[in-house]
Amino acid sequence: MLYLQKNYNLDSEKHLTSLNKEDYLPHIAFDSVIFGFNGKDLKILVLEYQNTGLFALPGGFLGRNESLEEAVANGVKQRTGINNLYLEQFHTFSNPGRANPEAMKQILEMNGMNIKAHDWLLDRFISVAYYALINFEEVDPVPDALADSIDWYSLDKLPPLMMDHRKIVQKALDTLRDNLDRKLLGMNLLPEKFTMKELQNFYEGIYGEPLKRTAFQRRMLATNTLERHEKRYDGGAHKAPYLYSFKAPLKKK
Amino acid sequence: MLYLQKNYNLDSEKHLTSLNKEDYLPHIAFDSVIFGFNGKDLKILVLEYQNTGLFALPGGFLGRNESLEEAVANGVKQRTGINNLYLEQFHTFSNPGRANPEAMKQILEMNGMNIKAHDWLLDRFISVAYYALINFEEVDPVPDALADSIDWYSLDKLPPLMMDHRKIVQKALDTLRDNLDRKLLGMNLLPEKFTMKELQNFYEGIYGEPLKRTAFQRRMLATNTLERHEKRYDGGAHKAPYLYSFKAPLKKK
Repeated sequence: MLYLQKNYNLDSEKHLTSLNKEDYLPHIAFDSVIFGFNGKDLKILVLEYQNTGLFALPGGFLGRNESLEEAVANGVKQRTGINNLYLEQFHTFSNPGRANPEAMKQILEMNGMNIKAHDWLLDRFISVAYYALINFEEVDPVPDALADSIDWYSLDKLPPLMMDHRKIVQKALDTLRDNLDRKLLGMNLLPEKFTMKELQNFYEGIYGEPLKRTAFQRRMLATNTLERHEKRYDGGAHKAPYLYSFKAPLKKK
Repeated sequence: MLYLQKNYNLDSEKHLTSLNKEDYLPHIAFDSVIFGFNGKDLKILVLEYQNTGLFALPGGFLGRNESLEEAVANGVKQRTGINNLYLEQFHTFSNPGRANPEAMKQILEMNGMNIKAHDWLLDRFISVAYYALINFEEVDPVPDALADSIDWYSLDKLPPLMMDHRKIVQKALDTLRDNLDRKLLGMNLLPEKFTMKELQNFYEGIYGEPLKRTAFQRRMLATNTLERHEKRYDGGAHKAPYLYSFKAPLKKK
């Protein structure tokens, strides 16, 4: 949940300056759920803080003169090393009990940061949450100075996450599923032309369960967002499946 | 954007206490877009502040020990007089330029509130925005102590709204349109059984434009969320339309 540049030296003054109370609005954080999908497996990007055993979503704080969109674009890049990631806001979490000052103290201590100078980090925060969906085979995340590691974890093998981060992941997943039809076009996770089977693989990956082929095909065609092209010939022509693409611009339902 | 109980006396100490800096988290507000629809016209609920000519969405602030959901449930009830309104969060607005301290000063002055004691209200705020959709013929909104009036305004006759409230309305409208199919069931704006024509009226009201009957019917039936019942007989039996209801529970697509 901290926002720090990778190339800051841990023992330098810069390090402390970067989480200076005066530079941020109090009580407002952001977190990001970065889904990775390679056509088969769905994973999530998780940071592990230095020597704490604490796992968390990449996040940060809102600068005094920043919009959330600016804070998130810069913060996620610095925490994960991933450039040009478009993240979409999906929910703001505000349970008064979501703070975990003990864990935050531990992170500060393990990074040699003065707790008193950073006591604003122990306060209550609301968190504005964002998500993105990318192909995890195409990026190479880099942990920032506060983290030991940054890694892709399968949904069913997530480590225990700090605070309410597991709940944030679940809400992101619900949102992703709800918006799947509308979001697909922008995600660039399918080739320009794809077969119905490839599209079905994608949905099955996100839903985490097998879908019936005929019902899936009927539903997809009813959305009126697909355009049918030539068949994909691979030798055995009698079994060649049709290729589809998304109609662009994707019409709102 | 202020949060005040209707039954507070304007000149009492209670009034000031209710916007006491110590009781709220700084920099965090909420606003609500309450859509009213009677089957034909779509309107929005807007407050006018006492003697200022300033119009705004009903809103408020986040109490130190409250979740946003609690703050919104209580705040909207107090500002509009409407009970048991379920509001759904849709976006958090954070442009650093969205504050309007001059307008806020004017509201404080016109309500006899000490500006210095309430200077935290002149700071920058992010606003977590919520929306609801109700039948405006079934509720009777009551302005709170800070407002001259609270009224339903048609979308094309909205008065100029404070700060970025017009942008918040537009985003709420976009969200409502995007979510219409999924939200319909819970909104109680249609009778339990309705004709395809009644359903079409509803969509046309929200989209603000006429839709083609045959295409509309085909699209609705393809969603697989409607159950067909007997015809509605009204004498001229040969023209009697079928009645439909929503399948419950509404399956996620």
